[in-house]
Amino acid sequence: MQTEVAPNIKNDLLLQAAKGSPTKRPPVWLMRQAGRILPEYRKVRAKAGSFKNLVTNPELTAEVTLQPVDILGVDAAIIFSDILVIPEALGLPYEMVEKKGPFFPKTITSAADIEALKDIDPYTDIHYTIQGIKIVKEQLSGRVPLIGFAGAPFTIFAYMIEGSGSKTFSKARGFLYRYPELSKQLLQKITDATILYLNAQISAGANLVQVFDSWASILPEKQYKEFGLKYIHQICSSISKVPVTVFAKGVTHGFDLLADLPCETLGIDWNMNRSYAIEKAKNKTLQGNLDPCVLYADDQTIVGETLKMLDDFSDVPYIANLGHGVYPDTDPDKVKLFVETVKTYSHENK
Amino acid sequence: MQTEVAPNIKNDLLLQAAKGSPTKRPPVWLMRQAGRILPEYRKVRAKAGSFKNLVTNPELTAEVTLQPVDILGVDAAIIFSDILVIPEALGLPYEMVEKKGPFFPKTITSAADIEALKDIDPYTDIHYTIQGIKIVKEQLSGRVPLIGFAGAPFTIFAYMIEGSGSKTFSKARGFLYRYPELSKQLLQKITDATILYLNAQISAGANLVQVFDSWASILPEKQYKEFGLKYIHQICSSISKVPVTVFAKGVTHGFDLLADLPCETLGIDWNMNRSYAIEKAKNKTLQGNLDPCVLYADDQTIVGETLKMLDDFSDVPYIANLGHGVYPDTDPDKVKLFVETVKTYSHENK
Repeated sequence: MQTEVAPNIKNDLLLQAAKGSPTKRPPVWLMRQAGRILPEYRKVRAKAGSFKNLVTNPELTAEVTLQPVDILGVDAAIIFSDILVIPEALGLPYEMVEKKGPFFPKTITSAADIEALKDIDPYTDIHYTIQGIKIVKEQLSGRVPLIGFAGAPFTIFAYMIEGSGSKTFSKARGFLYRYPELSKQLLQKITDATILYLNAQISAGANLVQVFDSWASILPEKQYKEFGLKYIHQICSSISKVPVTVFAKGVTHGFDLLADLPCETLGIDWNMNRSYAIEKAKNKTLQGNLDPCVLYADDQTIVGETLKMLDDFSDVPYIANLGHGVYPDTDPDKVKLFVETVKTYSHENK
Repeated sequence: MQTEVAPNIKNDLLLQAAKGSPTKRPPVWLMRQAGRILPEYRKVRAKAGSFKNLVTNPELTAEVTLQPVDILGVDAAIIFSDILVIPEALGLPYEMVEKKGPFFPKTITSAADIEALKDIDPYTDIHYTIQGIKIVKEQLSGRVPLIGFAGAPFTIFAYMIEGSGSKTFSKARGFLYRYPELSKQLLQKITDATILYLNAQISAGANLVQVFDSWASILPEKQYKEFGLKYIHQICSSISKVPVTVFAKGVTHGFDLLADLPCETLGIDWNMNRSYAIEKAKNKTLQGNLDPCVLYADDQTIVGETLKMLDDFSDVPYIANLGHGVYPDTDPDKVKLFVETVKTYSHENK
């Protein structure tokens, strides 16, 4: 797999680190940085009227994508969107229920339901995100790289079977045992759509893409290999122009399996043991790990925990981030403190 | 720690296995066997009017505790109760909201809230469960052992701070960073109450007790040692008359830490790698691991997966169980098939 650092990016720390090149300090961004915590975001969100209106409006999407670059000073933008645009493009629309999360009125229950799914064309079916990326790229003028993203196939599968979030995802997991072949058909359809979608994001200007496997940890290792990793592998193999990051939340014990993926960077959640991750990462770049709850603490704790993390990862290629999306009730000033702490850290001063 | 097998139990397979003694076949029971899946349970539940009415009525509690012994043929009863009786006894009442789960109108937010918690007397504050145990023991007439239980201190702490279930428990985790000393005070109060409660259950007739750490996996290892394991250790050390099982769901990577606890048995969830668990268990008895979603599959898959599990654990002391509570929509006939498969398994025929 070739990865080439985009030539027109002024601050390309993220791309250098993803490539495994030494950087004067680690780059820093936050999962969920676009949205939730910023009052400026909430104004745009209110103007949009609903979460989905915001996701499907390229101008507003671009506006909230750029906010954290300007306000928090992070080293990358990540396009504001939702992993569930893929099932919707496939023919399974969803609603975002306030304070509850996603809800699919129709779910996948049979072979006929899978047959009925559409072949997607990201340029028409998810045109709003592709268009949003183009606007962001123009307005960024190469200040920092732009990250594109998609959900991992099993995570998308879980929502399409379950119809909503769940503590156990027992319907989705039960489907794997009851209909293993149908499960694979559905996962393949999701994978094919995701590959088209990510490559469209890259063509529109995304400089790196991240695959989020939010529900990876609900599967035993054997099933995760068969129904999870296999499809992520296909995605990684299909992307050659930009670096790929895979973040499989909660996959602590089987982390060495992730390290075999043909991707550049592995995200690690706040529970991951650092020395274990470094040992198992097989020279891949690591990203994340700070407990988002640290940002509820006093300034001294935030600075101390952040510096400790940077020191712990100082001998490996590393991208500073939290171990989970920033929590909605986090004070933006605490986020700024985290970002500033990383930006004033120097590998030489360690 | 001494454990002695109760002399008046006819089928004492569970206690033998918990002690690490060889058994002709593994004992079998299911987490959440009392309730949820049985139509007979739902009748009693309807009669009680609400979940909490059922928990606080010793006669009805006893009735639903005995049902799985009679109907499913399991090798142990487990008292029907709820881990949240402890916060309620401490002075924090809760409601059980249909289809949503527990809700605490009042939560812990300050030192004063912790100060205000009561010292508990399980014989008055949780008399219904203690009385329920006595009734069950009488009606069991020594057929199988009775399991008592409580939540692990951190899991109870999480509910008392958060006020309900949560995907992230970010309030509870944030409390640990903001108020580490207060957190320890609260955890100690919960621990002291839990020790009194479990010993009261044992005095009333419980032959083994299990500590459920449902939210163990949301803490990084360092915090889990400091705010989780330390208090479970105290509980294990305070129980000398019966074997203790600790089930810390999701603690896959730090399983070797659990193996240092002074308890007899470690529960393992459906995600746990079997050879890793066996390697790290330091000769403790293991319990559980079958994915509850296997019970959604066809009979052949259920028998096959169960036998494979029994074979995989055949060289170590082992108690057959699922890796999570049985899911509410599981067909009772599938549960019976699982139980029968274990009961007809013989270590010699392997």
